[in-house]
Amino acid sequence: MAHSSRTNVLTSQQDDFPRWYQDVLEKAELAENGPVRGTMVIRPYAYWLWERMQAEVDGRIKATGAENVYLPLFIPQSYLAREAEHVEGFSPELAVVTHAGGKELPEPVVVRPTSETLFGELMSKWIQSHRDLPMLLNRWANVVRWEMRPRLFLRTSEFLWQEGHTAHATREEANAYALRIHLDVYRDFLQNVLAIPVLVGVKSRRERFAGAINTMTCEAMMGDGKALQMATSHELGQNFAKAFDITFASSSGQVEPCWTTSWGSSTRMVGGLIMAHGDDQGIRIPPRVAPVQVVVLAVKVDERTMTIGSSLVRELITAGVRARLDNRTTQGFGRRATEWELKGVPVRLEVGPRDLQSGHATIVRRDGGAKESVRLEAVSTTIVALLESIHTEMIEAARQRLMDRTVEAASVTEALDAAKAGFARIPWEQLGEEGEDALNREAVSVRCL
Amino acid sequence: MAHSSRTNVLTSQQDDFPRWYQDVLEKAELAENGPVRGTMVIRPYAYWLWERMQAEVDGRIKATGAENVYLPLFIPQSYLAREAEHVEGFSPELAVVTHAGGKELPEPVVVRPTSETLFGELMSKWIQSHRDLPMLLNRWANVVRWEMRPRLFLRTSEFLWQEGHTAHATREEANAYALRIHLDVYRDFLQNVLAIPVLVGVKSRRERFAGAINTMTCEAMMGDGKALQMATSHELGQNFAKAFDITFASSSGQVEPCWTTSWGSSTRMVGGLIMAHGDDQGIRIPPRVAPVQVVVLAVKVDERTMTIGSSLVRELITAGVRARLDNRTTQGFGRRATEWELKGVPVRLEVGPRDLQSGHATIVRRDGGAKESVRLEAVSTTIVALLESIHTEMIEAARQRLMDRTVEAASVTEALDAAKAGFARIPWEQLGEEGEDALNREAVSVRCL
Ligand SMILES: [Zn+2]
Ligand SMILES: [Zn+2]
Repeated sequence: MAHSSRTNVLTSQQDDFPRWYQDVLEKAELAENGPVRGTMVIRPYAYWLWERMQAEVDGRIKATGAENVYLPLFIPQSYLAREAEHVEGFSPELAVVTHAGGKELPEPVVVRPTSETLFGELMSKWIQSHRDLPMLLNRWANVVRWEMRPRLFLRTSEFLWQEGHTAHATREEANAYALRIHLDVYRDFLQNVLAIPVLVGVKSRRERFAGAINTMTCEAMMGDGKALQMATSHELGQNFAKAFDITFASSSGQVEPCWTTSWGSSTRMVGGLIMAHGDDQGIRIPPRVAPVQVVVLAVKVDERTMTIGSSLVRELITAGVRARLDNRTTQGFGRRATEWELKGVPVRLEVGPRDLQSGHATIVRRDGGAKESVRLEAVSTTIVALLESIHTEMIEAARQRLMDRTVEAASVTEALDAAKAGFARIPWEQLGEEGEDALNREAVSVRCL
Repeated sequence: MAHSSRTNVLTSQQDDFPRWYQDVLEKAELAENGPVRGTMVIRPYAYWLWERMQAEVDGRIKATGAENVYLPLFIPQSYLAREAEHVEGFSPELAVVTHAGGKELPEPVVVRPTSETLFGELMSKWIQSHRDLPMLLNRWANVVRWEMRPRLFLRTSEFLWQEGHTAHATREEANAYALRIHLDVYRDFLQNVLAIPVLVGVKSRRERFAGAINTMTCEAMMGDGKALQMATSHELGQNFAKAFDITFASSSGQVEPCWTTSWGSSTRMVGGLIMAHGDDQGIRIPPRVAPVQVVVLAVKVDERTMTIGSSLVRELITAGVRARLDNRTTQGFGRRATEWELKGVPVRLEVGPRDLQSGHATIVRRDGGAKESVRLEAVSTTIVALLESIHTEMIEAARQRLMDRTVEAASVTEALDAAKAGFARIPWEQLGEEGEDALNREAVSVRCL
């Protein structure tokens, strides 16, 4: 393997996975802590990755017919806790603004932990008749839930997310829509863009979202065998509509509560991507989401090499590849190669004087490290095909790991044992709520039925 | 004109321009007040418009080489007012979080009014050497500046914006970059996408951004002859870098402060677009930014009409036009036509049984109301060309108004007089800071030199 000759800059995953995660965020210049505890600075490369993820998710959401809106950051205290006498009465996850305009506010306002209550109020106003249905709304924004044990991307006091809320005339329509979001937006994005195989299922009654009649989840396995919830979709029945008085007059004139859904995904998916695909050399970004799919790297930065490098980049861009030339003269080749490896660019195209003499360049795959010499004329066709294979091989490798590390358990004891190294699959009849109690006592949760 | 036969749903601009503005926001379902005073709900159609504006501005920013980042919502009190003893000591524009995690915070945190101080701290850390320069960063986010007299889009306590901060090795580079942003991003976007002619110039010393050595502005004239500042770009010299200790080691090893710039534009531009182009029938969206460029409207919703309507929409989409079919059967033709007029869709294509018999449809322009009968085979080529002319004619009309309503003033008295109905142009030698005092006393400001 190509890596043997140099010292790793990261803690190895095997030695300490959480430490590896912290290391890679720092060394690949992805994110760092903000000055207020629990907040996060997302650096350019990771933000670019998030923008690409966001565009892919947003396109899929819009394809279901939903429209984006913006709802305010601040929510009146009364929306969240009509009974709270003093701000200490709020849930510990809330951040509360008590002063603004140079003085104490007559009523404190809460920084949105979600905009659920506001969606409720607005839908109640905007929906009058069956002609207003379905109402399919989504919102991209920052939200705040105060975190005692923050971890960048995974659990931060402020995070970026999308939050969808829809209202329908019938239970069937609401169910079908929630399922469509879950499969055509989340599962499709996670598998076909992020190359992460997901277990799609429903949550047990205990793990269900409050007020939901059904919570669907996409669970993915990280590099350490642990699960991460990547997105959830809830069927809220008529509970939410009844609480917020979201009613419609049917064509026969009868006034009925709507059937609603809600669903969300967040910057946590960036953390999931890093932990699902990363290795001891850095992160590995699957080609379809990669901000840079190919970096053309001059072994020696001379004029001839740079001219050929530039024309290869142009050729790749014309072929629809997101390609970039690394023409930095201030750092040696090895250091630049390591940097792109850390940042997980799927393909490096190395262009050196010796190769060029015979009309060749070298393709280096980030996923397995394989090198291949390719004739200059064949560079772009080879790479276009290669990017597709890399996607397929990355999801296959992840699927294999998921299978290898999922054990069929016949009892609670077996399930607990399996959960140390991966997932356990156990029949619900075998487990039941009592078994769930036993698992929970050992900090193992039932993720997905 | 087409409008004579029905009652206007809006206050006329002539009668009461601010009232017209409020009316159109409500009737075109663009925005409404949030429950916390000064906050704003942006409804789907206006948010779609903002997304399109954002994409156009973002693309231009990225073309200058800048990269997007995310910086946290919360800023430590100490960043903004090291000396403030108590939250009442803060500037009235700030919203302050005093409670989170279920208790009082040891140090209150401020909801960002801008991320300037945080950019300063981070750049100080990220920039070490001339190899790190130029550093070109931008950030899209919500910010909060408490407003005592809020107006939707124009002055809201929370608004959406982009905020760019860059650091350079020399004054020349910083100046050139700020100018590039001002002309190639802001002016180009405003004129070539929003069809709004702008006066580009520099601010007087008094109107300059605090700490800037030069503030450039894009000023546009609204429908009532008043000015609206659409975007500003600042050269900060070395002032900002000295305050935040943003230094770099030059190639000769000498440590020097950087030269920095900052620049921003916001959802205020949505308000500007509405006020620059709107008329008594609603808003008018210029074709290049319009979320829907053409709405195909069936006069009578029968099967044959809908089939032809759908195929026209497909044909238009294939030709690169953002087209949509209005197939609602629940509202009459007149009401639907009025709605699209209110929402300012540049072109309506009306498809009715009588026209269809002779193989025609009717094109109705939103900008002037002109109608034209067109053969079905010619629909898409006609509309593609028409959209370009509409852009040109809209900016020409706005330019004409700007010229008509700008008066050459020879004295302060003349300038004051002219400012009642539009702009006044007066030589700075004539005005000077004393003249500026006199104008300010009458609530007239010097917008642009
Ligand atoms: Zn106080
Ligand atoms: Zn208290």
